[in-house]
Amino acid sequence: MKDLPLSDVYQLLEPGPVVLLTSCHNGRTNVMTMSWHMMVEFTPPLVARVVSRADYSFAALRATRECVIAIPEAELAPKVVEIGNCSGREIDKLETIGLTPLPAECIAAPLIAECFANLECRVVETRLVNKYDLFVLEVLKAWRDPRQRNPKTIHHRGYGVFVVDGETIRPKSRMP
Amino acid sequence: MKDLPLSDVYQLLEPGPVVLLTSCHNGRTNVMTMSWHMMVEFTPPLVARVVSRADYSFAALRATRECVIAIPEAELAPKVVEIGNCSGREIDKLETIGLTPLPAECIAAPLIAECFANLECRVVETRLVNKYDLFVLEVLKAWRDPRQRNPKTIHHRGYGVFVVDGETIRPKSRMP
Repeated sequence: MKDLPLSDVYQLLEPGPVVLLTSCHNGRTNVMTMSWHMMVEFTPPLVARVVSRADYSFAALRATRECVIAIPEAELAPKVVEIGNCSGREIDKLETIGLTPLPAECIAAPLIAECFANLECRVVETRLVNKYDLFVLEVLKAWRDPRQRNPKTIHHRGYGVFVVDGETIRPKSRMP
Repeated sequence: MKDLPLSDVYQLLEPGPVVLLTSCHNGRTNVMTMSWHMMVEFTPPLVARVVSRADYSFAALRATRECVIAIPEAELAPKVVEIGNCSGREIDKLETIGLTPLPAECIAAPLIAECFANLECRVVETRLVNKYDLFVLEVLKAWRDPRQRNPKTIHHRGYGVFVVDGETIRPKSRMP
């Protein structure tokens, strides 16, 4: 994993990919699948996300105020679905599903080696947590796997259906 | 435009498409392009979004507490770029760019006839507006154009580059 400039982070999240979120609480690592996130600021990059209090990761995020957002390429889609279909209450998901944790630099939650980008995050805003389970995170450090050159991400349409990135376009304005 | 059940709204926004936002303030209609939005709740559907206070639409949203989120198909990409490249301070964007306003049912801001889905929204949460320009909206009414059967949306990657929806997949879990 190589450094990614923080000013480039929005280019990864603004398109709305499904991401994984890792946490580490009381020595236990966990990972969840999520799509409810958005950019809030370019630099330093701020990201809002909703983590339901029904999720095992909610307590970890609230207590440790740290997490990693890891972005998987489309070939990882079956594992992404598996992560979403089980709970860290019962199993060590990373080990069971076969994803490789790597140490992060600023926080205890792990990076995921198979993901093409990993963002180390700290919670900076909790006013909307009680009512909406909505956290605002600051990205402290960003990593990119240079071997994954043009990764295609996946976007969740509900009910386990995903759309994979297709053609890239640069539309020209037709205004005179 | 036909009724879309409110419980289906998340399927449209969760994949992270570029959307248009219309407003109506002091008799003036405006439209902007945006990608910084996410789902917050399924039913009633709540959506968070960041509208920079530098945007002309910010004042309208703050004053009227209403807007329409309209979702364009990929063929509208050139018009989406045009909308993002000019300001409603100077021109009537819908008319100049050639998009057709339709009356909404619950609010004054217009639907956009060319968009395959239109969501009438009301602001329900403003605590994070001062610090982050972040609004939470409730979708009051949702519309879908039944003639646009399988619309492909676009996702912004920064610098005017967009990725168009590609293949749809339903990955099978490989867990036993």
